[in-house]
Amino acid sequence: MVTSRDVARLAGVSQPTVSRALTDHPRVSEATKRKVREAARALGYSTNAIGRALSVGRSNRIGLVVADLENQFYANMIAPLHDELERLGHELVLITESAASAPLPERVAAHGLAGVVLSTTTVDSVQPARLRDRGVPFVYLNRVAPGVRADAVTVDPETGVREIVAEAVRLGHTRIGAIFGPRNTSTGELREQVVREVLDEHGLGLAQRDVLHGPFDFDTGRDGFRTLRERAGGPTLVLCGNDVVALGVLNAAAESGVPVPEHTSVVGFDDLPTSRWALVRLSTIAYDLDEVARESARLVVARLREPDAETAHIVYPTHYVARSTVSAPRT
Amino acid sequence: MVTSRDVARLAGVSQPTVSRALTDHPRVSEATKRKVREAARALGYSTNAIGRALSVGRSNRIGLVVADLENQFYANMIAPLHDELERLGHELVLITESAASAPLPERVAAHGLAGVVLSTTTVDSVQPARLRDRGVPFVYLNRVAPGVRADAVTVDPETGVREIVAEAVRLGHTRIGAIFGPRNTSTGELREQVVREVLDEHGLGLAQRDVLHGPFDFDTGRDGFRTLRERAGGPTLVLCGNDVVALGVLNAAAESGVPVPEHTSVVGFDDLPTSRWALVRLSTIAYDLDEVARESARLVVARLREPDAETAHIVYPTHYVARSTVSAPRT
Repeated sequence: MVTSRDVARLAGVSQPTVSRALTDHPRVSEATKRKVREAARALGYSTNAIGRALSVGRSNRIGLVVADLENQFYANMIAPLHDELERLGHELVLITESAASAPLPERVAAHGLAGVVLSTTTVDSVQPARLRDRGVPFVYLNRVAPGVRADAVTVDPETGVREIVAEAVRLGHTRIGAIFGPRNTSTGELREQVVREVLDEHGLGLAQRDVLHGPFDFDTGRDGFRTLRERAGGPTLVLCGNDVVALGVLNAAAESGVPVPEHTSVVGFDDLPTSRWALVRLSTIAYDLDEVARESARLVVARLREPDAETAHIVYPTHYVARSTVSAPRT
Repeated sequence: MVTSRDVARLAGVSQPTVSRALTDHPRVSEATKRKVREAARALGYSTNAIGRALSVGRSNRIGLVVADLENQFYANMIAPLHDELERLGHELVLITESAASAPLPERVAAHGLAGVVLSTTTVDSVQPARLRDRGVPFVYLNRVAPGVRADAVTVDPETGVREIVAEAVRLGHTRIGAIFGPRNTSTGELREQVVREVLDEHGLGLAQRDVLHGPFDFDTGRDGFRTLRERAGGPTLVLCGNDVVALGVLNAAAESGVPVPEHTSVVGFDDLPTSRWALVRLSTIAYDLDEVARESARLVVARLREPDAETAHIVYPTHYVARSTVSAPRT
């Protein structure tokens, strides 16, 4: 059987590029797409993922594992992921993680899913290994687990963190605090590590009293702001694990009559649509959330077509977006 | 075969109560649930919806048809609907309406769905009739179509509208405006009709220049606020078709530096979680959105079990919640 490896060789491109070109990835040039399509045609390589999936008796349903559907981060990820899957001829099944439900591989089998997008993986999760052992194709979205290789789409916090820390230093902040995400997630861990490193390079540290950890949700931010404030007035700038946490902080500040940014500057991570509202104008570390979600859809569909291809880990860059929640520190 | 009618007769309750009791509906008393369960047991009536569905060769997947997943209204409906379906042993498949996709009944068949929840029906939609003709069980969520009977959960705007209009009159508003939803939806139509009737009872009307219509989305509110303002300064109070529209209005007002409620009072409909934020504090017409969504899950599951039972139309009441976006009119 003709594989994408053969197409790659003939087209003179890498194997991941073949998958991306054939799923019409926006970052592949039109010229490359044409070259790959011609090579695929010449070799008789099928570009019809649905036909392929159905011909081997598989459904075209992809499961998305999410933790908390009311969390705006997941809500904003579902729409582009759904749309991209639909464009590729696939349907989205939502699967929430809960202690009460059956183990994931059993649910995948019971519902005849062709593949899975994992967006809630903790570093100690057994799910990736179980899915691998059962031969269920899956991709990591946003988070990864160590030890189990699979296609992944993640975000590199470094550029964005460098930009905001440089800005904070320029404005004169010396007491910076943070409400980080959970320590048992790769996103929480990586963001914390990068923040600590970059602050260190500027000769700044995080005082223990100015650092909290918690789930990536609204309550973490709301309660966290109150806790930080009780400790000697709190830091002059708070870096939040994500935008949902930052929105919790902004609302707690509004409730307590604490002016943002005059008393406390606040920075998020994700750039959700709500963060751009005139009522909010959250300064945050941004990346192309829609594209990250869409990429995971393309990866899982490419994986169904080509189970033995090399795994791809696609990393999206970040940048700092200055809006209205960061200013010079209070004096 | 024993039906819920038999159980209802033995337990001395109505047929819809049997379904609701057996799906553990929170509004059915424990005593009634016990009575119904005993009657079901005595008659050998199966309470296992999954077993029943599977035994007749059906999947346990329920499709939810939504228009716009990024719309916070749908995002907030998906979570409780998903959770309730999961509790009842069912899985949620998201189906978005788009001109490009195959007709709904074909998609239902292709994906082996056991039933469908319709949340986007327009009054001229052919979908309900097509689903009925194909024998696909479905329920209306929030919106209904005339002419095709099916189980439905909707909201009655009247109580809430009466409360806010009385309040507006008491505060001295005489120039009231509205940004209504689309005219081809039952929700848009009904809310508009009720608003006009209640204003009329108070001797107030809606001047044509102060009324707009549009989709139930953020842009309708944002653009609508600007349009209304261009017309002799705009009304002193704007009733919005839903909260998402009202959030668009609030953000447009913030962008233009128009103080709410001092210059313009704003009222929503739905009471989304975001509307309760300290940064927002939207005065709105509220109902139990979670329960409405959960109810649709229970209805569709009950329908799978009992295809020939009488249809149920469950209507949830509304009430006005005063927060920070309504005050006396500008002078």
